[in-house]
Amino acid sequence: MQTLHQIQSEFQEYLDQQTFGTEPDNLYLPVRYIMSLGGKRLRPAVLLLCHKLFNDNIAPAMPAALAIEVFHNFTLVHDDIMDQAPLRRGQPTVHHKYGTNKAILSGDVMLVLAYQYLLRLENPDLITNISKLFTKTAIEVCEGQQMDMDFEERTDVTVDEYIRMIELKTSVLVAAAMKIGALTGGAGENDAKRLYEFGRNLGIAFQLQDDLLDSFGDPEKFGKQPGGDILQNKKTYLFLKALELADADTKTELLNWYSATDFDEGKKIQSVKGIFSKLEIPAHTEQLKTAFEEKALGRLSGLNVSPDRIEWLRAFAKRLMQRKF
Amino acid sequence: MQTLHQIQSEFQEYLDQQTFGTEPDNLYLPVRYIMSLGGKRLRPAVLLLCHKLFNDNIAPAMPAALAIEVFHNFTLVHDDIMDQAPLRRGQPTVHHKYGTNKAILSGDVMLVLAYQYLLRLENPDLITNISKLFTKTAIEVCEGQQMDMDFEERTDVTVDEYIRMIELKTSVLVAAAMKIGALTGGAGENDAKRLYEFGRNLGIAFQLQDDLLDSFGDPEKFGKQPGGDILQNKKTYLFLKALELADADTKTELLNWYSATDFDEGKKIQSVKGIFSKLEIPAHTEQLKTAFEEKALGRLSGLNVSPDRIEWLRAFAKRLMQRKF
Repeated sequence: MQTLHQIQSEFQEYLDQQTFGTEPDNLYLPVRYIMSLGGKRLRPAVLLLCHKLFNDNIAPAMPAALAIEVFHNFTLVHDDIMDQAPLRRGQPTVHHKYGTNKAILSGDVMLVLAYQYLLRLENPDLITNISKLFTKTAIEVCEGQQMDMDFEERTDVTVDEYIRMIELKTSVLVAAAMKIGALTGGAGENDAKRLYEFGRNLGIAFQLQDDLLDSFGDPEKFGKQPGGDILQNKKTYLFLKALELADADTKTELLNWYSATDFDEGKKIQSVKGIFSKLEIPAHTEQLKTAFEEKALGRLSGLNVSPDRIEWLRAFAKRLMQRKF
Repeated sequence: MQTLHQIQSEFQEYLDQQTFGTEPDNLYLPVRYIMSLGGKRLRPAVLLLCHKLFNDNIAPAMPAALAIEVFHNFTLVHDDIMDQAPLRRGQPTVHHKYGTNKAILSGDVMLVLAYQYLLRLENPDLITNISKLFTKTAIEVCEGQQMDMDFEERTDVTVDEYIRMIELKTSVLVAAAMKIGALTGGAGENDAKRLYEFGRNLGIAFQLQDDLLDSFGDPEKFGKQPGGDILQNKKTYLFLKALELADADTKTELLNWYSATDFDEGKKIQSVKGIFSKLEIPAHTEQLKTAFEEKALGRLSGLNVSPDRIEWLRAFAKRLMQRKF
């Protein structure tokens, strides 16, 4: 993945040159803060990778990559307010550090800045085309976030609804990043669509695996103790699939754990994981994840680029699923 | 003002046809709610009026007018959260009715919807040009809102800073609405710029008059008791100009009233107004307001449209300053 790493460092260099507004400080300091917290810069990197499939000069795509990264960080700022999250990437969240009002307003200006960066692209037809896709995607991300909040209150969420939610909340932005990169690189509509579908399916596969790893991941490999989602009563794929497959008694037992207020944390994790295992949920999740992954990879054949470049995408998908960025 | 009234009703008709998204309901109900609360629809109306200066068919400009109105309402939703306002147009604010999380997210999606409407315009060059102006304006509105919040904490705000704040927070959006209408109507860059400056100066004049009316307006004419800004210790033009002109004793008296925690409301209003009157603040405000108004009207001469159409704008300005919409 030399190509991806090089792209990531080129993007980081570009990002380091950005000033993010001038005054008032209280509006722009939070923007600079969240943008400096790091992160994998995965979305801009795949945008630039997809651009490079069609055009080796990635400089003209940098503003679009920046737009995607600033938009992603805007969603983090506002989501963290809604989730009342104290920490992000091991540091205080924006609303904890600067207060909720500044977090709302700085988030707003980041959303507008994302458009400002997109509008720096050169060709008006390309700007219009990409802005429409970006806008559609931004709306979907908001819809996904609302669905996610709705699910917390609901007791009748289906597996299909859950897949739709993760698609909107996380996958479409990865998909859009890939398509935008293809378009700035000069790809035809057909190739751009294939890359969108590659990203969309890969994003869903990634999120399903995330659910699995949160409960069954190797703590030595992933650096965190499993069971966070279980303790937070998150309606993940694992939980919803278990409800779908469980007999009446097991269902009651599972629901009891998810509504219990007084419990031993270790025992709750162990018991819920026991139910998941008994119902073979890990295998079901693995299977569905693989199906989406294969669907993603399937979209790569027929792409009008040389096999060695298609290999970049296969390697990217592989490393993504291995959590090696 | 038959022309303006007709435009307002045509816009309202167009607005009534909008559905504002589909699902999830929890995301779009707040959008439909705030958009149904009414208001004068002033910004879309002036956009369409400026379009009509150059082109009698206003239909193609409707999406841009909608974008401006949805953006304006987005700012109301988020500002009301920041100001902890319980009421808007006599009804519960969005965050009071639906909760803060939904108000944040619905506001976000409204900002994106505004772009979606702009992107419905037909010519890619026009879309790019207008989107850039809209984006610059949206950033300025955020900056103005942050300055306004900063001023609440600061004790050294100058009159010039205050004028800059109201320019950013309210005038540039009116100015942009006028310029966008000119551009969709086919105006040249020169005319479009003149209309921008007309709107910008008129907006500042309007806001200065607003400050004056809040303390010295006729309650029978404006439907509210004067003194709201004084009771809220708002750093209006009147207050800042008074601080600038007052001798040491008067300054101390004024600052004491603005930091008092235990007082008789009627007495506070009467005393502060007494200080304002002694310093001839109403005349100063009137003078500055008139200067901006005249600057605005001055930009109309030289506009490449027939005198009877320029008259639309003069009549609009007159009615705006008379609060007759």
